Amino acid sequence: MRNLDEDTITQAVLARHTGAPDARLREIMTSLVQHLHAFARDVRLTEAEWFEGIRFLTEAGHITDDKRQEFILLSDTLGLSMLVTALNNRKPRECTEATVFGPFHVEGSPEYPLGADVANGARGEPCYVRGRVLAPDGSPVPNAELQVWQADADGLYDVQYKGDHEHRARGTLHADAEGRFHFKSIRAEAYPIPHDGPVGRMLEALGRHPWRPAHLHFMITAPGFQRLITHVFRDGDQYLDSDAVFGVRRSLIADWVEHPPGRTPDGGTSEVPFYTLEFDFVLARAA
Amino acid sequence: MRNLDEDTITQAVLARHTGAPDARLREIMTSLVQHLHAFARDVRLTEAEWFEGIRFLTEAGHITDDKRQEFILLSDTLGLSMLVTALNNRKPRECTEATVFGPFHVEGSPEYPLGADVANGARGEPCYVRGRVLAPDGSPVPNAELQVWQADADGLYDVQYKGDHEHRARGTLHADAEGRFHFKSIRAEAYPIPHDGPVGRMLEALGRHPWRPAHLHFMITAPGFQRLITHVFRDGDQYLDSDAVFGVRRSLIADWVEHPPGRTPDGGTSEVPFYTLEFDFVLARAA
Repeated sequence: MRNLDEDTITQAVLARHTGAPDARLREIMTSLVQHLHAFARDVRLTEAEWFEGIRFLTEAGHITDDKRQEFILLSDTLGLSMLVTALNNRKPRECTEATVFGPFHVEGSPEYPLGADVANGARGEPCYVRGRVLAPDGSPVPNAELQVWQADADGLYDVQYKGDHEHRARGTLHADAEGRFHFKSIRAEAYPIPHDGPVGRMLEALGRHPWRPAHLHFMITAPGFQRLITHVFRDGDQYLDSDAVFGVRRSLIADWVEHPPGRTPDGGTSEVPFYTLEFDFVLARAA
Repeated sequence: MRNLDEDTITQAVLARHTGAPDARLREIMTSLVQHLHAFARDVRLTEAEWFEGIRFLTEAGHITDDKRQEFILLSDTLGLSMLVTALNNRKPRECTEATVFGPFHVEGSPEYPLGADVANGARGEPCYVRGRVLAPDGSPVPNAELQVWQADADGLYDVQYKGDHEHRARGTLHADAEGRFHFKSIRAEAYPIPHDGPVGRMLEALGRHPWRPAHLHFMITAPGFQRLITHVFRDGDQYLDSDAVFGVRRSLIADWVEHPPGRTPDGGTSEVPFYTLEFDFVLARAA
């Protein structure tokens, strides 16, 4: 302990953790310290670079509040979020794949009846969404809870508008006894992740764009099944092959069909073009 | 890009950085992403554990301000700071070793003449410090600038007192033409690093104490020599073998000699016991 050097310090830190009462915490911290130190050694991190790292984390902390989560953006853009999602959501082939949660989910979004317009005034082209929630054998999962959320035509989620606390383009619905759901919303659009902070500057320095392809978020829960957190992506989007957060899965891309003005799926009439999206979700059974 | 899984995502992230204009940034981010992903894979990080990590970083960001730097405390307690110090301060054997900078240095501390009392009212037992600043060949380095800072008898640095903006137990001095310096201060005491935040909770969960052995900080600069950032530690301290930030070096431990009340090195008289510390610093020549 009195003569640590660049080679012996890692073991000295790990030795300090042998008394940690929680074995899992000890396991996590052992790996974290080993990789953190290996990173510094690999690149021979300079003191100025270390300090830039401290500054980066400090800025990320200061821009983070109850509506902005820069550390999740950092995890997302470095592919860590998608990796953790993949590690924890190995499912049978017939089940719908999971993808990243993202920073814009809100607890307690308003409950809507089937068929309702969850846009609630959010700007965008009308879109009618329908589908079923199924078990792996194709049988319906009755009454599953679906939380949906998405950005508007300006690429912003409701929580990104300052001073506006109304829920828009998000809601909670329940599928019917045959697993069917349908609702009205707006067409999802590609948007850049918030890039006016340190993560945005990181992306710029790395020559990366901040865009995500258009998608609609779903979180689906039903007793006896694993919770599914995923998106449906819009086919044809120019960013499907370069999602800033690495969330695209081929199986999650769907056709958002354009229709001319006229009769809509809910029995009304639209004077503007509208879209329809149909997507079935297959939940994995709880272990 | 449309079918990434837990094995292929790392290469996909790295491929996104091939256009980064700065080769050094690309090198650093390549290693960082590889180690970050390897960590998550090694421990099979759960989504709940990932979210605890996000919460930890968020809390660390929110407690950090211009007087409290939780990310430096985190780096210090995980041994990263000492590792980076060691990587960047390989010196000839005859030179004084460097150690961690710590979060309590302040730019622009008041300039004092040699012999002054830098305590400036900080509570503690009187201590007279003297020494020389030398080149590797033992010749004096004239007029080196020495910044010194330390905690008081309560284990607190001046910046940790709320609402008090006066510099205490810190100052800037210049050695004389023969490299000699001397000043009065207070005896350094062991103290716990700030542990009322997430880093303190981490240490507690790991079964670790937050204490640092008593030490006096020095930052020494002189034209033609490498800047030296180091401490002098007080021999006999109970935490020399378990410094919370892994900063102790055997060569930096010195005897802080206790004296009974009486004649002091500055020609005055002390009615209380006092201490003397003598330490010479050997600077490495600039490359």
